[in-house]
Amino acid sequence: MTRRGLLLILSSPSGAGKSTLSRMLMDWDPTLRFSVSATTRPPRPGESDGREYHFRSREDFQRMIAQGEMLEHAEVFGNFYGSPRAPVLAAMEAGTDTVFDIDWQGGQQIKQAMRGDVVSVFILPPSIAELDRRLRARGQDSEAVIAGRMAKSRDEISHWAEYDYVLVNAALDETFARLTTILSAERLRRERQPQLSAFVRALNEEFDAR
Amino acid sequence: MTRRGLLLILSSPSGAGKSTLSRMLMDWDPTLRFSVSATTRPPRPGESDGREYHFRSREDFQRMIAQGEMLEHAEVFGNFYGSPRAPVLAAMEAGTDTVFDIDWQGGQQIKQAMRGDVVSVFILPPSIAELDRRLRARGQDSEAVIAGRMAKSRDEISHWAEYDYVLVNAALDETFARLTTILSAERLRRERQPQLSAFVRALNEEFDAR
Repeated sequence: MTRRGLLLILSSPSGAGKSTLSRMLMDWDPTLRFSVSATTRPPRPGESDGREYHFRSREDFQRMIAQGEMLEHAEVFGNFYGSPRAPVLAAMEAGTDTVFDIDWQGGQQIKQAMRGDVVSVFILPPSIAELDRRLRARGQDSEAVIAGRMAKSRDEISHWAEYDYVLVNAALDETFARLTTILSAERLRRERQPQLSAFVRALNEEFDAR
Repeated sequence: MTRRGLLLILSSPSGAGKSTLSRMLMDWDPTLRFSVSATTRPPRPGESDGREYHFRSREDFQRMIAQGEMLEHAEVFGNFYGSPRAPVLAAMEAGTDTVFDIDWQGGQQIKQAMRGDVVSVFILPPSIAELDRRLRARGQDSEAVIAGRMAKSRDEISHWAEYDYVLVNAALDETFARLTTILSAERLRRERQPQLSAFVRALNEEFDAR
């Protein structure tokens, strides 16, 4: 019997490094599965359907919610975002860990639904000045959009204490090392290793045979 | 404010590698504190008071229990064993992690008393044949003592499912790497980092000042 897959939730304000860290994780362990969210917002330049997001119409998205196909969903800035449920459950059964790059609302819904299978990590920026710098460095957003992101960042940061682990992303390599340490350790938790029951049964049979 | 020290409980049947792993941990991180147990059993050749154990008379030990000075204690093979409480609490306040090399009874008592501060790891042998081999390799115990240890081992192993993490010690270096991964990750848990509250307060002041 294989290990039971866990759900690794990464949340952070925009610009704190969450997406970069997610990509690094996927490179570090190619067996990880990234949960691609569905959304009703239109694709940005360079985004393609099924890679950054599953782009869906409002009607499609609402039908998926109604049929219970979403593990979590929320409306942000007038658009729906959500995580399809079926591929997550299939991955868990197959012993594959799933990485979620989502906000606190989504994280909280997944935690309520999946409890002990969830490992949640919040990434804090080293300072707000640095967060602002990273947001501007993207160079693709208007001043109004950046102001909106900063307001949302403050709201997102206010939920830091709801997470299992908190990392301050001052140096990317160090933060990444800590993230892989957390994932590696969480895989060793007893309840994630159902194969141990059979192993201990075999030890007891060895005692019996002495 | 410093990090809050955690209590790392290592349990295993005799011969599964727990004591070796404890020593390796202390070398790996000299800031770790090893909880030296008190006992009423007489010293073995080569053991010295305060290093392997605090050797105490039965009267002294019972007085310590009566005065609440023991974090946990148990009677095994007619001798008392226990962990003095005061140095553990002092270490936690100072942000120092304490390592306990104790059996399931002690582990359970500490977990009940200290709850969220405890990280418990059970070390399983790869097989009973290997456990037997390691016990005999010590070359200092009689056949009757070994038989008694094997019976106690079976009892100890029956409690594996009460631990947070379980490691099968097939290859020492690999088991040790996993143990340090667990300790490193547990140090990153939010509730072990009380300094984060002040850090997030500073981020909010930075938002206010914009």
